[in-house]
Amino acid sequence: MAVKVYGPAYASPKRVIACLIEKGIDFETIPIDLLKGEHKAPDFLQLQPFGSLPVIQDGDYTLFESRAIMRYYAAKYKLQGTDLLGGSMEETGLVDQWLEVEAHNFNPHIYSLTIQIMFYPAVGTPTDEKAVAESEEKLGKVLDVYEQRLSESKYLAGDFFSLADLSHLPFTQYLVGPIGKEYMIRSRKHVSAWWDDISGRDSWKRVLELESKGWAGN
Amino acid sequence: MAVKVYGPAYASPKRVIACLIEKGIDFETIPIDLLKGEHKAPDFLQLQPFGSLPVIQDGDYTLFESRAIMRYYAAKYKLQGTDLLGGSMEETGLVDQWLEVEAHNFNPHIYSLTIQIMFYPAVGTPTDEKAVAESEEKLGKVLDVYEQRLSESKYLAGDFFSLADLSHLPFTQYLVGPIGKEYMIRSRKHVSAWWDDISGRDSWKRVLELESKGWAGN
Repeated sequence: MAVKVYGPAYASPKRVIACLIEKGIDFETIPIDLLKGEHKAPDFLQLQPFGSLPVIQDGDYTLFESRAIMRYYAAKYKLQGTDLLGGSMEETGLVDQWLEVEAHNFNPHIYSLTIQIMFYPAVGTPTDEKAVAESEEKLGKVLDVYEQRLSESKYLAGDFFSLADLSHLPFTQYLVGPIGKEYMIRSRKHVSAWWDDISGRDSWKRVLELESKGWAGN
Repeated sequence: MAVKVYGPAYASPKRVIACLIEKGIDFETIPIDLLKGEHKAPDFLQLQPFGSLPVIQDGDYTLFESRAIMRYYAAKYKLQGTDLLGGSMEETGLVDQWLEVEAHNFNPHIYSLTIQIMFYPAVGTPTDEKAVAESEEKLGKVLDVYEQRLSESKYLAGDFFSLADLSHLPFTQYLVGPIGKEYMIRSRKHVSAWWDDISGRDSWKRVLELESKGWAGN
């Protein structure tokens, strides 16, 4: 039975979809329109009481929070498709560590840029240029740490691609595209090579292809 | 060899210490004084490039981010001490889900109350009463979801104590103590019973005892 993924048009669910593709797990997508408030509808709140995306349904198992969903599939199907957790407990610890860094250090600032530069103009709210400048500066400092780390190992958790790298894909795609700040990646040699590597994976190219078709027929 | 835990006086490292006690793992604590800027010293930044607490050193293995450290020890010593990850992949998925909820839904608001009500007065910065009111309202909505969840299962991830519950201990201890908002717990029947249960565990009582002695001789 295919895994149902709610809200494929948004960044966090795309993390889950890229992970499912890496693991070779069948899925289907169910659109949720945040602008229409579909995430606050009673049926959706039954699945996700905070009204957030994504949610998956796998038979009668329901799970939310993108990084929890990715960890579940990466562990359950560890030997199928790409191993995304590292080869030892210590490597998995580092995957988890950098996944937490993505969530707590990287994501707040890139999320703020996404809201200010992509979302607000779409709904007629003025962009707060001071907030943009602050987020850009803070994100730059995080990317400076990444630059140092990626000069020591090919990927964030070590010399293996993992959930920690994958989790950066959707929002960094916004950064180099509609947010218009590709320079933040390109001005850092190791971050730039890492971005080319992870965004060039078949799984991510497939996500972008499905998105370009409006998620029809995946 | 005992696990070295940096910064025991602060909330996030206390999560790790409670976890190590539950697992029966020896540890020693190394004080870090944030007010003296010890987290920005070059030696500390070698361990944790973002200058955040906690960090652990276990032989030559270094790991940071409290929830990553807890997952590492809970998995590595799954059969020792209290099992904190659930008994199946699906239960572990729910532990991870509620641990993410703690990090993304619960923690930002209780952290804001901690900064406004505990930290700012200590350093002579005025408390922003509007920010307090907003955080209190948002935290209340999160606790309403917890109240519903805890009417269905004894603990957050199911009928078993897990990392998802444990991770709430340090900041909720502030909430019912120095923050002075115990009513937020006591006005919700199931949340109140859950708090009595998890805060009454030997591991947490030991953390509070060690704290009262200034972390000497643990």
